[in-house]
Amino acid sequence: MYSLPELDVVRAFDAIGVLTSGGDAPAMNAAVRAVARTALNRGIRVYGVHRGYSGLLSGDLRRMSSASVSNIIQRGGTILKSDRCEAFYQAETRQKAADILREHGVQALITIGGDGTLTGAHLFTRETGIPVVGLPGSIDNDIPGTDDSIGFDTAVNTAIGAIDRIRDTALSHERLFLVEVMGRNSGYIATQVGIACGAEMILIPEYPTPVESIGYTLADNRRTGKGSSGIIVVAEGPEPGLTGRLAEQLRIFGEEARVCILGHIQRGGSPSAHDRVLASCMGVTAVDYLLAGYSDIMVGCDGRALKPVSLAHVSGGRKRPPQLYQIALQLHK
Amino acid sequence: MYSLPELDVVRAFDAIGVLTSGGDAPAMNAAVRAVARTALNRGIRVYGVHRGYSGLLSGDLRRMSSASVSNIIQRGGTILKSDRCEAFYQAETRQKAADILREHGVQALITIGGDGTLTGAHLFTRETGIPVVGLPGSIDNDIPGTDDSIGFDTAVNTAIGAIDRIRDTALSHERLFLVEVMGRNSGYIATQVGIACGAEMILIPEYPTPVESIGYTLADNRRTGKGSSGIIVVAEGPEPGLTGRLAEQLRIFGEEARVCILGHIQRGGSPSAHDRVLASCMGVTAVDYLLAGYSDIMVGCDGRALKPVSLAHVSGGRKRPPQLYQIALQLHK
Amino acid sequence: MYSLPELDVVRAFDAIGVLTSGGDAPAMNAAVRAVARTALNRGIRVYGVHRGYSGLLSGDLRRMSSASVSNIIQRGGTILKSDRCEAFYQAETRQKAADILREHGVQALITIGGDGTLTGAHLFTRETGIPVVGLPGSIDNDIPGTDDSIGFDTAVNTAIGAIDRIRDTALSHERLFLVEVMGRNSGYIATQVGIACGAEMILIPEYPTPVESIGYTLADNRRTGKGSSGIIVVAEGPEPGLTGRLAEQLRIFGEEARVCILGHIQRGGSPSAHDRVLASCMGVTAVDYLLAGYSDIMVGCDGRALKPVSLAHVSGGRKRPPQLYQIALQLHK
Amino acid sequence: MYSLPELDVVRAFDAIGVLTSGGDAPAMNAAVRAVARTALNRGIRVYGVHRGYSGLLSGDLRRMSSASVSNIIQRGGTILKSDRCEAFYQAETRQKAADILREHGVQALITIGGDGTLTGAHLFTRETGIPVVGLPGSIDNDIPGTDDSIGFDTAVNTAIGAIDRIRDTALSHERLFLVEVMGRNSGYIATQVGIACGAEMILIPEYPTPVESIGYTLADNRRTGKGSSGIIVVAEGPEPGLTGRLAEQLRIFGEEARVCILGHIQRGGSPSAHDRVLASCMGVTAVDYLLAGYSDIMVGCDGRALKPVSLAHVSGGRKRPPQLYQIALQLHK
Repeated sequence: MYSLPELDVVRAFDAIGVLTSGGDAPAMNAAVRAVARTALNRGIRVYGVHRGYSGLLSGDLRRMSSASVSNIIQRGGTILKSDRCEAFYQAETRQKAADILREHGVQALITIGGDGTLTGAHLFTRETGIPVVGLPGSIDNDIPGTDDSIGFDTAVNTAIGAIDRIRDTALSHERLFLVEVMGRNSGYIATQVGIACGAEMILIPEYPTPVESIGYTLADNRRTGKGSSGIIVVAEGPEPGLTGRLAEQLRIFGEEARVCILGHIQRGGSPSAHDRVLASCMGVTAVDYLLAGYSDIMVGCDGRALKPVSLAHVSGGRKRPPQLYQIALQLHK
Repeated sequence: MYSLPELDVVRAFDAIGVLTSGGDAPAMNAAVRAVARTALNRGIRVYGVHRGYSGLLSGDLRRMSSASVSNIIQRGGTILKSDRCEAFYQAETRQKAADILREHGVQALITIGGDGTLTGAHLFTRETGIPVVGLPGSIDNDIPGTDDSIGFDTAVNTAIGAIDRIRDTALSHERLFLVEVMGRNSGYIATQVGIACGAEMILIPEYPTPVESIGYTLADNRRTGKGSSGIIVVAEGPEPGLTGRLAEQLRIFGEEARVCILGHIQRGGSPSAHDRVLASCMGVTAVDYLLAGYSDIMVGCDGRALKPVSLAHVSGGRKRPPQLYQIALQLHK
Repeated sequence: MYSLPELDVVRAFDAIGVLTSGGDAPAMNAAVRAVARTALNRGIRVYGVHRGYSGLLSGDLRRMSSASVSNIIQRGGTILKSDRCEAFYQAETRQKAADILREHGVQALITIGGDGTLTGAHLFTRETGIPVVGLPGSIDNDIPGTDDSIGFDTAVNTAIGAIDRIRDTALSHERLFLVEVMGRNSGYIATQVGIACGAEMILIPEYPTPVESIGYTLADNRRTGKGSSGIIVVAEGPEPGLTGRLAEQLRIFGEEARVCILGHIQRGGSPSAHDRVLASCMGVTAVDYLLAGYSDIMVGCDGRALKPVSLAHVSGGRKRPPQLYQIALQLHK
Repeated sequence: MYSLPELDVVRAFDAIGVLTSGGDAPAMNAAVRAVARTALNRGIRVYGVHRGYSGLLSGDLRRMSSASVSNIIQRGGTILKSDRCEAFYQAETRQKAADILREHGVQALITIGGDGTLTGAHLFTRETGIPVVGLPGSIDNDIPGTDDSIGFDTAVNTAIGAIDRIRDTALSHERLFLVEVMGRNSGYIATQVGIACGAEMILIPEYPTPVESIGYTLADNRRTGKGSSGIIVVAEGPEPGLTGRLAEQLRIFGEEARVCILGHIQRGGSPSAHDRVLASCMGVTAVDYLLAGYSDIMVGCDGRALKPVSLAHVSGGRKRPPQLYQIALQLHK
């Protein structure tokens, strides 16, 4: 259960906009719903911007009612659709976006997405003066300044559901599987998934493991009677193909391993209870921060407390490595 | 992601016991696995006590190996089995239990369960001097001194999975459903579930709602075009039958509502990733607290930090009401 | 995989209607989608009748396009909404319904629902001459003339998912659970569920079991070391309360059993692959039967072959008891 | 619901063996349970052969009791473990296997697996005279002589669960995904999955589609306003890499498509109700066929009737293409 900040209303808005941008994440819809319902309850008009910053630039803003967010809290993806918008990296494009918002009478913006989205939001508000509050929406949980992000818990649950299935085959055939999970440069998904599925090993970019060491451990497991079957969870890393190459290298050490790349199944699906509640709390809080006069911030999560985090910090920062990585090492057989 | 305390080893144990007691909760097995593997890694023998305090009294202790907790992290229920043991309320019984542990050379005990289990643990260690560390295992999340308990997240996810199904019928037939969730005197499950499934109303013991007020709100919803279908989540309360009686009372107000009692399906099932990780972290930490010289404590969760909580506080305390209840009120249409 | 009849086109229609009526069932949406897309592909206009026969009487017909059934195949419930319509039991009401269809230029009707719906369809086409083809949509699988009905497989899967969870508690606490599943007078759900979850006993209306016999078997299981825990699957029967009364009667025999009533969670949810495919095949075939000049029939399922079944047979008939009941008896321990 | 043959007992056995071989499939455990319990009920000793034919050759036979198959019906994989055994392709090896069975007093064998397993069973019984009945256990459903195989329904449900998630992203980003499902040379999984998830296109080996035709259809969809997002289900085909190459070829046609390879997640997992019931019925029937004097047969499924199929037919035969492929073409937008 989260604790929300208590805030005084110091500003008024006639209308605000809300958009989702970058890779979609489960419970983005729950966040949109919370933003819309909270703003409407405060007497503010709400516009949904379709297709992220691209839709903003093309003026695709649609008035939202309480009913337009009914029955979406349980849906994956984003009803506002999303996009990665290269053009938004340019200052003049951001000015144009501000003009479009002003034409619609939209006085503030709530953006939901990952670090790219939040960096764009930071530049946008600094340059145009239009207040912006960001929400961390990312399955990777790699956004600096927040312990948690919308979609992370669901993605982890999806991955362990898949790995629980793979383990059936691993046990039946006494085989070793390398299972690649998402996360780009971040090992958060891999660490959480690895602990939760009782993986034999977890490989993440933050703590590189030499292939010799992996091969040695596997040989050692076999020698000490721990068997040669099991699951090694691998974070995808910055570029594709990592896990396939690892399997080839292990073959040199005499270790046979199957490769499974979980891929896009981790991104969608009905959000977990945790993500629905997190997104709901963050959506309410985003509107309340705007009304309390905040801007250029993201709603972050510190333990279970929601708090404002400067978007400048998010934009330039770097998240520390997952601390639980160490604990994982001592729990497998 | 949790942060675990850093602890120095000041005590040594030859053997410890671990038991689960009271109502079973998902991820109890993950906790047992983490306790066993951590202790074995520290060179400590581990005995699994079967059937909770009842099994302790009958001397049903079984030596555990690393392999005996293989492939259980994903299983619901508890491989150690559980029981509610009336006899353990008596001081002489607890002395007898201590004798049995001493006979087996077991020098400390880790107990996993709810407030009854933890109260028993408190009395046991105070009277017998045998060090005890407790873990909060309860789907209800009603244990004082901790924000979270093992099994809560899974139970909430199970309930919203069921309610997502019921909503299909509610929408197809434009009907109202009263869905009773578990939680006894606590509204934590109901509040979390209610927010996560976008319930029209949440009824919990901590904030009683008069039936007149419910009837009035429903009539108002109909009048203002919000429709008469939907989900009201009801915490079960101290005694059975509450929700059925509520449906009858609502009929007097002209409101027709179907009753669904989710019941025992909330208690079992493969644990969520969150609960598997929480239980794993708590299991590791329980052993480390024992080695650091702690006793008569529960491993509690404060935000995302694990910390010791006096069992005296757990035993006599009362958990504050769920704070998110207020937020739920403003999010439904 | 189903085999579909090969049919020649002998009739032409400008427009047809489709409706869902009675209790909703998973994959009704898949059937509506298949009806709409098939008819549109044949150059026929399609009207969705909202709220079953009630909506037909109030003229709630909406023109459907290919896009209006996009992205619904995976959704539970029915986008056309459903209702139980008492008025449709009267002949004059059915004449009025025919007039409304003719006003809209709708020349034939496809109705999806259970025996009440199909009986109404039979009377309607006989009295008004408007061609009707019915589809068996019922989680109970109690419709005569067809081996399978839309929604049955999903409901059974939902029930076993719930019972797999209950079994975790049954095993952890060595308890006996009476789990009541849907099915009214039919034991089809109970039999399929009972076999699939490895139930200790299955109680269905078609083969009544005296309570003495249940008590004796339970006592015998305990005596022969088979333990006293387990699951007894109970078909709900014609009126509520059966399973609660059974638990009370068993108490007289010294048997303690918990009661779980699965209730409405069995009705909703994303349909299983089987039901999506069955409903798709039946929806295509319904349109093709209309074009082949058939009327007053239901699309039935004989093994894996789809075939026409006279609605007169459906209306007056009685389904034979589930044959697999006998096999269930020899598989539990 | 299946109909089982009625068979007279004409032979007696003191002991039989049961094994699983080849790729594991969900509900193999349900089949093993049904074989063991049925045989035990008939007074026959049962030996579980571990690790398929490899375990048979190394004499890894373990006596089974009713309790040894308790609580396994819901588990994926196979408790008997499985293996692909090259050595069993040689006649002298099969003679050695027969000797080992005779040493243990095992007079007949029930083998559960795919076409390789069943071909081995056919040669084995023909050469050694030891009666064998096979069960079709294969997620691919590519075994001649049976409409259905143990594990197929579960694998299809797992795949559509994954694709329902991918569709969230496809819709949110208006992207095209190529989703590769299992099936080797068979398009059964792809066809069933494609219909069930409402795929825009299905590509299977039995009906090859030129890449030009795919590119043309996609361009046409865009031109006629059907959008460019969606799911194309691709059967994996005889060798890996097919789907990746297809994506590259489509790029030449100006079509951007993401690739998802579902891989081993389709093989494991708790079996669906359908597969548990199918496997239970087949397991019972396999024992009854042995007792009725049959050998060198597989228990096949013709519609919903179980019937004996000559293993010679299975071994040399070829399954006809999936008939529903045609229906799939007319149901997507």
